[in-house]
Amino acid sequence: MRILIAGADGYLGWSLAQHLASCGHEVAGADGFFRRQWVEETGSSSATPIHSIEDRLNAFRNSTGRDLPFWPGDLREYALVDRIFREFHPDAVVHLAECPSAPYSMIDVDHAVFVQTNNLTTTFNLLFAAREVCPDVHLLKLGTMGEYGTPNVAIPEGFFEIDYRGRRDRLPFPRQAGSWYHWSKVHGSNNVMFACKIWNLRATDVMQGVVFGTRFEGQGQDPRLSGRLDFDPCFGTVVNRFCCQAVIGHPLTPYGTGGQRRGFLPLRDSMQCLRLALENPPEAGEYRVLNQFEDVYGIAELALRVQQAGQTLGLDVQIQNVENPRIESEEHYYRPDHQNLFDLGYRPSRDLDGEIRAMLEDLVGCRERIQARREVLLPEVRWDGARRKVGFLGPARPVAEIYKTNAAD
Amino acid sequence: MRILIAGADGYLGWSLAQHLASCGHEVAGADGFFRRQWVEETGSSSATPIHSIEDRLNAFRNSTGRDLPFWPGDLREYALVDRIFREFHPDAVVHLAECPSAPYSMIDVDHAVFVQTNNLTTTFNLLFAAREVCPDVHLLKLGTMGEYGTPNVAIPEGFFEIDYRGRRDRLPFPRQAGSWYHWSKVHGSNNVMFACKIWNLRATDVMQGVVFGTRFEGQGQDPRLSGRLDFDPCFGTVVNRFCCQAVIGHPLTPYGTGGQRRGFLPLRDSMQCLRLALENPPEAGEYRVLNQFEDVYGIAELALRVQQAGQTLGLDVQIQNVENPRIESEEHYYRPDHQNLFDLGYRPSRDLDGEIRAMLEDLVGCRERIQARREVLLPEVRWDGARRKVGFLGPARPVAEIYKTNAAD
Repeated sequence: MRILIAGADGYLGWSLAQHLASCGHEVAGADGFFRRQWVEETGSSSATPIHSIEDRLNAFRNSTGRDLPFWPGDLREYALVDRIFREFHPDAVVHLAECPSAPYSMIDVDHAVFVQTNNLTTTFNLLFAAREVCPDVHLLKLGTMGEYGTPNVAIPEGFFEIDYRGRRDRLPFPRQAGSWYHWSKVHGSNNVMFACKIWNLRATDVMQGVVFGTRFEGQGQDPRLSGRLDFDPCFGTVVNRFCCQAVIGHPLTPYGTGGQRRGFLPLRDSMQCLRLALENPPEAGEYRVLNQFEDVYGIAELALRVQQAGQTLGLDVQIQNVENPRIESEEHYYRPDHQNLFDLGYRPSRDLDGEIRAMLEDLVGCRERIQARREVLLPEVRWDGARRKVGFLGPARPVAEIYKTNAAD
Repeated sequence: MRILIAGADGYLGWSLAQHLASCGHEVAGADGFFRRQWVEETGSSSATPIHSIEDRLNAFRNSTGRDLPFWPGDLREYALVDRIFREFHPDAVVHLAECPSAPYSMIDVDHAVFVQTNNLTTTFNLLFAAREVCPDVHLLKLGTMGEYGTPNVAIPEGFFEIDYRGRRDRLPFPRQAGSWYHWSKVHGSNNVMFACKIWNLRATDVMQGVVFGTRFEGQGQDPRLSGRLDFDPCFGTVVNRFCCQAVIGHPLTPYGTGGQRRGFLPLRDSMQCLRLALENPPEAGEYRVLNQFEDVYGIAELALRVQQAGQTLGLDVQIQNVENPRIESEEHYYRPDHQNLFDLGYRPSRDLDGEIRAMLEDLVGCRERIQARREVLLPEVRWDGARRKVGFLGPARPVAEIYKTNAAD
């Protein structure tokens, strides 16, 4: 299958290129390298050392024995997207060419506008290029479980049948996202749903849980193939950040009570699920929604699991809750479905502790890189518009003291 | 009350400025004059002659005895919006600074991207300026009944309580819009809802039906105060277009069967409703949704009503259904609520035929202007991506013959 990855240089995209190639698919990529710039803008960088796209592509060729056709450039330019479609003529396109950060979108008006218009424009360009160039292409769009928010009822996969005032209909399940970024994904989901309806396109909209981890099936051994792993509060997801904190002796920092519950999945499960969705495309005209996560966990529980995994590796890991920079419920009902991917053959790896241990092992060698940018470990972008480092809750130790203690480790 | 109208030069904005001033409010305006450009781009112009903003503002001063502070410029520029808020410090802002055309948004990828990013950006700028400069301001955002689409159940006002799998919640009612423009309004509604939640702003989101007509309470008599009335298929709404067709002997052209049903309201009712919403603001933190229309009508019925009104004025009005350029249900259930505005004191004018007759009378004097641009009366932008004039349905007469006949009128 010929698969184009839009956003092939990122956390998911670069891993997916390797995973799909290892399964025999012909992979091409495009990327404008925005993710590298955004992380730099936050004052951070990947915990794992990552290489230039030239090195990555050379290593890919050496490792897989085949080329990865690659178009560098800004996918907000329709002419570029149109050209890529005409030159590669994909059977499927994976849309990872969006800015994936809630806190980044909450920085100020410029960032809010940027994230939403960037994400809308790249999505439009892919939809129009599909219509114009290859209307049979399967668009696999990355959404997020965060589109649903935390309603007080079960969360179906995209749609639900309801009775309302004596009549019945199948309707899109209401979305209640929690940041400008998450809303940009809702906007995109709505646009993709509408394009399928009017243009008979086929699309899968993946409501993905929070991804964590450093390993996946089909991963190349060449160090130039290494994937990124972010730990800043904008682009680092929570378990990845906890693990980076753990290896340098910084306390793990759940926001608020840590009672928030979310769907999570290891990187290896994400790769498996995306491949299954690609290998089992929807019908023409079908807009298919998949809730993609292994299981639901609470944030405080995950902190404990990272602490325990760290102890098995001899790390002394503390947990100190911090002020919640977000405006969100910290105690809430959460019952999302995730049957569709199981029906497609998803076999969850079901080894949270093993996955966390593996990540800690990979990150121990990256301690110096994380230490060098430890200032980013506490968030400062707040949902109320303020920009001020969060403080510790409870029997708090001042940030400076923790830094001093850690520096003496 | 100090009221800023963002988009004060348009069909609703310019009327609203006069209506609010006549009720004693202090009105200010801002506009980038995009509407004038967009209509020109479609090859059309207002059926009624409209004047430059300088002439309009002079006439406003002469007519009302007070100035209308006005900021020309592009409201996608945050610095401008910020400056307006600091200089005028409004109690309320009416957000009409969006591109309001479904067909315009369906022209091609550039127009789709433009309409959604324009509408998102102006909305963001108003939300951030409210947060930064006057967080108590009441944002009155124009949405559209088209956000809901035509579900097979009743349509509440924004939210509904449901039982789902044994639990209960109050959720946003699912949206199923029918064009990139209508989706832009859904995206905007979602963003405004979220801003109210996290920043404690107050907003009214008006799900407005299709507006028609030329008259309203408080209308100035100076011809320089004249409002625009569009008849091209992008910016002309259906009853307005039917009336323009009627006065030049062009057949009225319902799309498809004309069985589509929508909420409608005369311009005078729109002005009354918007004023009532402004004079009765929501609480801080409240995101209030008002479904704003007088009643539900079918398109074929409205064509008949225009035909009959025309006959009372001696006009020979034909009806000829045309191919539907849109992808939409032509026969469907439609039962939207509209109680909230009645609770605020809305007294519908309830004189559809009188309103249509008045509009026909106003438009008879504009025949030459409409004749000169009659080519725009049939749409060519199709939802499937094609760009080709629609043809007549049933016992159809070729377009050329109708033009010839009309030219001989």
